[in-house]
Amino acid sequence: MSEKPKQDIMEATFTALCKHGYADLSIQKIADEFDKGKSLIYYHFDDKEELMLAFLDYMGERVEETHEELEELEPDERLDKLLDMALGMTEEEQWEFQKAFLELRAQAPRSPGFADKFEQIDSIILEYMENTLEELNVENPGLIADMLISCIEGSVIRKVSIDDKKGLENLKNSIKGIVEQSIVEGCQDC
Amino acid sequence: MSEKPKQDIMEATFTALCKHGYADLSIQKIADEFDKGKSLIYYHFDDKEELMLAFLDYMGERVEETHEELEELEPDERLDKLLDMALGMTEEEQWEFQKAFLELRAQAPRSPGFADKFEQIDSIILEYMENTLEELNVENPGLIADMLISCIEGSVIRKVSIDDKKGLENLKNSIKGIVEQSIVEGCQDC
Repeated sequence: MSEKPKQDIMEATFTALCKHGYADLSIQKIADEFDKGKSLIYYHFDDKEELMLAFLDYMGERVEETHEELEELEPDERLDKLLDMALGMTEEEQWEFQKAFLELRAQAPRSPGFADKFEQIDSIILEYMENTLEELNVENPGLIADMLISCIEGSVIRKVSIDDKKGLENLKNSIKGIVEQSIVEGCQDC
Repeated sequence: MSEKPKQDIMEATFTALCKHGYADLSIQKIADEFDKGKSLIYYHFDDKEELMLAFLDYMGERVEETHEELEELEPDERLDKLLDMALGMTEEEQWEFQKAFLELRAQAPRSPGFADKFEQIDSIILEYMENTLEELNVENPGLIADMLISCIEGSVIRKVSIDDKKGLENLKNSIKGIVEQSIVEGCQDC
């Protein structure tokens, strides 16, 4: 598939997912967000599941691109941006998307295709977080990165499932506290 | 409803959820785990959603009972048991249940009834964790409890969605490390 139609279909899928959630999503609803109509979608994808697997790849690519853009920042500033992004604090649309993403994740235990994609996205995020913590001179960066990502995902899921945005700012500060406590220099007096 | 049939229906629901997941669950599949048949379930509940709301209440009660049983333990031993339970490391069935619980949680953003129940269960777990951390003399027990619960839930969801049990033992040790770092006495030399 050439890049332009793919990009357009993926963007329409993102918008439709945010609006309707996964359970209520249909090819028709995606086509409604897309001026070229349903036939172009069916030309590229057999069904909703195949489209969603491609969408999860697209999500992985987006995550990689965004991380590459952040590479130029100093590691402490980059950590700050990574936390804002992961906590969905940057854009309103992101909050709706987190709900749909939770639904997609709930499919994974019973769909090997979904599970593979989530494993890939997870390992991309883990690698970037680990590199950033390493640059910050954090002890055991791999272990701490794994824990921080769990902490962020769990918090987003808890807050998204009861539609409560409060508390995420506090969590961000707690996570920064953990990182500071884990920096090797800071522990020389302990 | 008298307690005995309710208890039986809830146990059958638990077993059926572990076996089939939420999306494929039906009153018939619950009745298959229950020697008194479908009519007794329909006598008490109009549909699957009403039954699931009662089931989430039952889950909340079970969480409370288990925590009360742990009250007699010393706080450090209690924390250990709480982590094992929350990480689903105690029983094989618990692992299957976590998958179904993730599916239920994914319904919450679009179902106010589900969201209320999850908020209740979450606040029960948060309160017990906070009390345990307070007894351990942890600084900011409320904030740390909130973060630990996010961390546990996020980790379980990440591991359950890709069916990978490894890593939970490491997480348990990391969490204990955070708790130790947050104990007020341990910081007097910092």
